Amino acid sequence: MPIVMDAAALTDFLRAEFPQVATDYEVAAVTEDELVVRLVVADRHLRPGGTVSGPTMFALADVGVYLAILSRIGPKALAVTTNCSIDFMNKPAAGRDLFSRTRILKLGRVLAVGDVLLYSDGQAAPVARASLTYSIPPDAS
Amino acid sequence: MPIVMDAAALTDFLRAEFPQVATDYEVAAVTEDELVVRLVVADRHLRPGGTVSGPTMFALADVGVYLAILSRIGPKALAVTTNCSIDFMNKPAAGRDLFSRTRILKLGRVLAVGDVLLYSDGQAAPVARASLTYSIPPDAS
Amino acid sequence: MPIVMDAAALTDFLRAEFPQVATDYEVAAVTEDELVVRLVVADRHLRPGGTVSGPTMFALADVGVYLAILSRIGPKALAVTTNCSIDFMNKPAAGRDLFSRTRILKLGRVLAVGDVLLYSDGQAAPVARASLTYSIPPDAS
Amino acid sequence: MPIVMDAAALTDFLRAEFPQVATDYEVAAVTEDELVVRLVVADRHLRPGGTVSGPTMFALADVGVYLAILSRIGPKALAVTTNCSIDFMNKPAAGRDLFSRTRILKLGRVLAVGDVLLYSDGQAAPVARASLTYSIPPDAS
Repeated sequence: MPIVMDAAALTDFLRAEFPQVATDYEVAAVTEDELVVRLVVADRHLRPGGTVSGPTMFALADVGVYLAILSRIGPKALAVTTNCSIDFMNKPAAGRDLFSRTRILKLGRVLAVGDVLLYSDGQAAPVARASLTYSIPPDAS
Repeated sequence: MPIVMDAAALTDFLRAEFPQVATDYEVAAVTEDELVVRLVVADRHLRPGGTVSGPTMFALADVGVYLAILSRIGPKALAVTTNCSIDFMNKPAAGRDLFSRTRILKLGRVLAVGDVLLYSDGQAAPVARASLTYSIPPDAS
Repeated sequence: MPIVMDAAALTDFLRAEFPQVATDYEVAAVTEDELVVRLVVADRHLRPGGTVSGPTMFALADVGVYLAILSRIGPKALAVTTNCSIDFMNKPAAGRDLFSRTRILKLGRVLAVGDVLLYSDGQAAPVARASLTYSIPPDAS
Repeated sequence: MPIVMDAAALTDFLRAEFPQVATDYEVAAVTEDELVVRLVVADRHLRPGGTVSGPTMFALADVGVYLAILSRIGPKALAVTTNCSIDFMNKPAAGRDLFSRTRILKLGRVLAVGDVLLYSDGQAAPVARASLTYSIPPDAS
């Protein structure tokens, strides 16, 4: 499916619609195969010991799939997450940004499914994996 | 399994170990059947429209299972979340606190499983359900 | 939501539509709170050691949620499973039937969510928990 | 992690340990990147309309991750599935075999996580995705 919103368009959309969190994220790459988002890690994302918190990793996975869907269907969508399954596999490295790499596995009329791997900057093994389902409202199709 | 930490002990533990988020939560009830946590909803938990964000609901489910495990094994545990599956079923009501009601379904030597329903204060239908697995490190048993 | 198909109607439906597997299951109870299905365990459901296989437990959870949805929306539904998250918590007892106890947590226009606990007959602790999402096609509503 | 059991060794293991189901599966490829299993679809795997049943797809995902773990840790393992999250995305084609393609994302001391895509033979879009966690007993490491 062709890309209809590029990194700049997605960044503008995020800033306009989700100003509270938009500065946390940088859309690093948007292709037909995957969308990459960088989380600029700050103190508010950390747990004692300097590791990134679980809710922060969930949020990064969620925003990755959301933006990957929008990159294909455009900014008019009020898509909402209906399900997420996430596995926390390794502790993120302290003091490092986090990346999400998202693939869209299904983009149906009412449901979309995306698959995410999360990485600490500079490490080969993923710290988490997640899969998310979004419900796409009728007026968005 | 008997309760070894009550609401006051869990609240003290949360404040000592997770000062960044402890004031968000109130341990409302701890019994052998369930543990109830209230999220005191503030602006930082909201999305446009006044609804509670997905990561905030994830965090509430996570803290509910964490505290329910500690209520049974005590404060020495470095338990970590290894898996979460969460279904977002209804939009939380704007301007209302959120509750998590957690049941521990398994408390094994190395893995514990908890089940959570999230409710908007004053509404009968749950807004989300989640199940989480925690890994309990050997030195905690 | 009122019950529109009782245990006898659900059993008839299962036999007509899914003759390959219908004799495995007995609809034991249908109320507004939960639906109980008994799996009549046979050799084909077992793994070495006499324990019930994972796919058999998945199937029992799946049929439980399916029948619980039909009990509320009637036999015309071509509902399909879109997601399942299942936790295997304890080995089923050898030589015992298995029960599923299903609650419907959401019954929306396009998506339904059910929650299941599986028990070995005669044991207090559940052997597995599962949550499933069904997609309900437009012509079924 | 190096491969310690190849396709022939895994096939022999399956036939010895799981004779009830071993003939359903063919280990098609084992590399460090992925393990591919073919399900030889037979009548007992089908639902009305000729499509492969959900429990059959679950079983194929499960056996894929199991064999991928064994390919790395050897045949002595009594590894058991503790969690599975599966998304059914498209109906399998009638009359076609099914493939699972498994990647091991984590192989820890006590937990392993694998990621699976299921395909109908000859189709580009996956019919399902799944992620599974296995618990590896101490005597297996």
